Amino acid sequence: MKIVVIGSGTAGSNFALFMRKLDRKAEIIVIGKEPTMQYSPCALPHVISGTIEKPEDVIVFPNEFYERQRIKLMLNTEAKAIDRERKVVITEKGEVPYDKLVLAVGSRAFIPPIKGVENEGVFTLKSLDDVRKIKAYITEKKPKRAVVIGAGLIGLEGAEAFAKLGIEVLVVELMDRLMPTMLDRDMATLVQKEMEKHGVSFRFGVGVSEIIGSPVKAVKIGDEEVEADLVLVATGVRANVDLAKKAGLEVNRGIVVNEHLQTSDPNIYAIGDCAEVVDAATGQRILSQLGTSAVRMAKVAAEHIAGKDVSFRPVFNTAITELFGLEIGTFGMTEERAKKEGVEIVVGKFKGSTKPEYYPGGKPITVKVIFRKSDRKLIGAQIVGGERVWGRIMTLSALAQKGATVEDLVYLETAYAPPISPTIDPITVAAEMALRRFR
Amino acid sequence: MKIVVIGSGTAGSNFALFMRKLDRKAEIIVIGKEPTMQYSPCALPHVISGTIEKPEDVIVFPNEFYERQRIKLMLNTEAKAIDRERKVVITEKGEVPYDKLVLAVGSRAFIPPIKGVENEGVFTLKSLDDVRKIKAYITEKKPKRAVVIGAGLIGLEGAEAFAKLGIEVLVVELMDRLMPTMLDRDMATLVQKEMEKHGVSFRFGVGVSEIIGSPVKAVKIGDEEVEADLVLVATGVRANVDLAKKAGLEVNRGIVVNEHLQTSDPNIYAIGDCAEVVDAATGQRILSQLGTSAVRMAKVAAEHIAGKDVSFRPVFNTAITELFGLEIGTFGMTEERAKKEGVEIVVGKFKGSTKPEYYPGGKPITVKVIFRKSDRKLIGAQIVGGERVWGRIMTLSALAQKGATVEDLVYLETAYAPPISPTIDPITVAAEMALRRFR
Repeated sequence: MKIVVIGSGTAGSNFALFMRKLDRKAEIIVIGKEPTMQYSPCALPHVISGTIEKPEDVIVFPNEFYERQRIKLMLNTEAKAIDRERKVVITEKGEVPYDKLVLAVGSRAFIPPIKGVENEGVFTLKSLDDVRKIKAYITEKKPKRAVVIGAGLIGLEGAEAFAKLGIEVLVVELMDRLMPTMLDRDMATLVQKEMEKHGVSFRFGVGVSEIIGSPVKAVKIGDEEVEADLVLVATGVRANVDLAKKAGLEVNRGIVVNEHLQTSDPNIYAIGDCAEVVDAATGQRILSQLGTSAVRMAKVAAEHIAGKDVSFRPVFNTAITELFGLEIGTFGMTEERAKKEGVEIVVGKFKGSTKPEYYPGGKPITVKVIFRKSDRKLIGAQIVGGERVWGRIMTLSALAQKGATVEDLVYLETAYAPPISPTIDPITVAAEMALRRFR
Repeated sequence: MKIVVIGSGTAGSNFALFMRKLDRKAEIIVIGKEPTMQYSPCALPHVISGTIEKPEDVIVFPNEFYERQRIKLMLNTEAKAIDRERKVVITEKGEVPYDKLVLAVGSRAFIPPIKGVENEGVFTLKSLDDVRKIKAYITEKKPKRAVVIGAGLIGLEGAEAFAKLGIEVLVVELMDRLMPTMLDRDMATLVQKEMEKHGVSFRFGVGVSEIIGSPVKAVKIGDEEVEADLVLVATGVRANVDLAKKAGLEVNRGIVVNEHLQTSDPNIYAIGDCAEVVDAATGQRILSQLGTSAVRMAKVAAEHIAGKDVSFRPVFNTAITELFGLEIGTFGMTEERAKKEGVEIVVGKFKGSTKPEYYPGGKPITVKVIFRKSDRKLIGAQIVGGERVWGRIMTLSALAQKGATVEDLVYLETAYAPPISPTIDPITVAAEMALRRFR
């Protein structure tokens, strides 16, 4: 069997490795535009801040690692088209025939049509190449004031990286708060306050209308001109669907796939950022665009090609980040989204401490849990705190994935030790708050 | 309604508070031997080490807090007997009538019949009073060598506290490893090595046969005499069942209760360390003796008395501790216990890092997951690692509580960020290891 993967990112690289484990004989070929296999896009802000020393450090395995596993690499190679009749991928370097084709073509940074967005000193933060350019620019120009356009995860992590380098940062966000798709306003405010303590400023509800100067000197926010010698455009990503569309595959915002991750052509799969998945909270088709989803999709596609009857499960888009020592964890439905989509929910919220009162060093933690009113199931959570947020969002997400109700949380067996957590965990108390509102 | 609680510890105190929340009018009376309400027995080692400054700091709320909530306290008072016919508790200070009675009489340290165990300088670590005595003894005698009898949680945490005070520590354990009811030997060895690095020594498979001198000068281990000027006896606890037995209630190793935590007399409940619960891994009746179980039992008993149809769920005995910065988390079935009890299991184990390779500061972590062969369900886990063990054991325990199978773990959606955790979590890899063995 000849299995061809287009895309050498997280989804494509992991697919190739999973596939090789499941089928020692199959011919596996990866066609990729970039010169290397998988690296972690989430790690890029930490390369800018210098926490990770060299850009190359974030490459998970060297190309030889894949080649030793008899995965054939066609890197620095663009796939131009797919001929589904003849079952070949057409690249600039020739045709590659396939029995099964996997599209792992990822996403690209969305560049809003702002005047001057192509000027020198304006960057996106999506690829290793982006990071090299930003680092070179910072070394050469020693910028003093950065403007970050967009307050999503990448925007905020970029802002943190700049601030750690001593650059003054202003984040501009069209919505009324930071991390608007992941956090409600009350929770976003907690993060904002912490970032402001570390010198990051915010402007909400406005956009950047113009970038002035090349190299950049200022940006225009509404009518106001704000000095800036570095601009990061972090306004989200778009799934790469052109190749699929050209091949006549069904495409929405992402490539449409069934539960086995097959596109409308059963010999062609789509995985990772380019493919649509099912939202566990609503059943709607969404783009997940998380590395963890890409890895799980890679696994399911490889197993399905190997003949296993497996399905990709709906996702809650569980995410975690750390900003200036504050941990932020989220998944699933937010209060605001529920209102928009007309989902009746019951919310519980509790602000507590990460350790028992009597043990020194406890830090504030705020837990918000969101249940669907109709079936009492946990469909979302947001946690902001000084430590141990990750463990709590993992626990809550795992419970949601198993269909846990508010009662499951209220009577949940937790693990307690004085240096680590309180006897009655904040997640339990938050659930109790919600339970009262159910009555 | 007149609700009487015997016992002012974690179970009794929490019961009184939950009951008051549910019933603003009921008369609630707590009869307790000690002079204060709930304090955390798990915090006591941290008082010895000095991390928590004063013994009194571990008292959760002052007596006035309960009294303000119209909870009547009869402290420094021993309940002598229960007259079930007349529905009264007989104390040294008179009779207390009840409509509903809650036994929260706890457990006591088990003292093995070792010659010299009553000598000066030999302690248990169960009560605030024990801690005061140990602290006074350490201040006065400045002991140099401690022997800890028993390598369970309290023994090890006591050993850590002594070591932190510069006292040389030898832990003597009859079984072949430390934490023998919670960890298999392979996992226990990881903890032992770390503790040895910090100067704690171990002797396994032997007991202390004699304690010599008062104040203590040495202990006899087999035929060998080992110098020691401080001895901690940490050989487990026994449920206090005498009062219940005398009252004619059904008693095994603990007081027998139904799913609503009612004893064989439906007007009498038993909660906390003194009551038996159902083991989630086997369905057998066991003693849980964890603070978290006590709190949940208090909640369920209060709700049942208030008229709610609630049941206490089987427990996995999820536990966490931190020893010299190493986190150890466990729950449910161990490999050894499964062998003993004839439960067919499938084990997955993985040693990884707490962070991605490319991010600095990752620490080793070993995850062991145990599935029942017949239904593929997760019934136990053990994790030892340098950080973020708690979040993982919480997640796995929550999954087990919801009946998760090996497939649920393999396809689990986790939360990833470079400073926090790898893209493919060690718990996922451990589950994959197990899945392969299922085939």
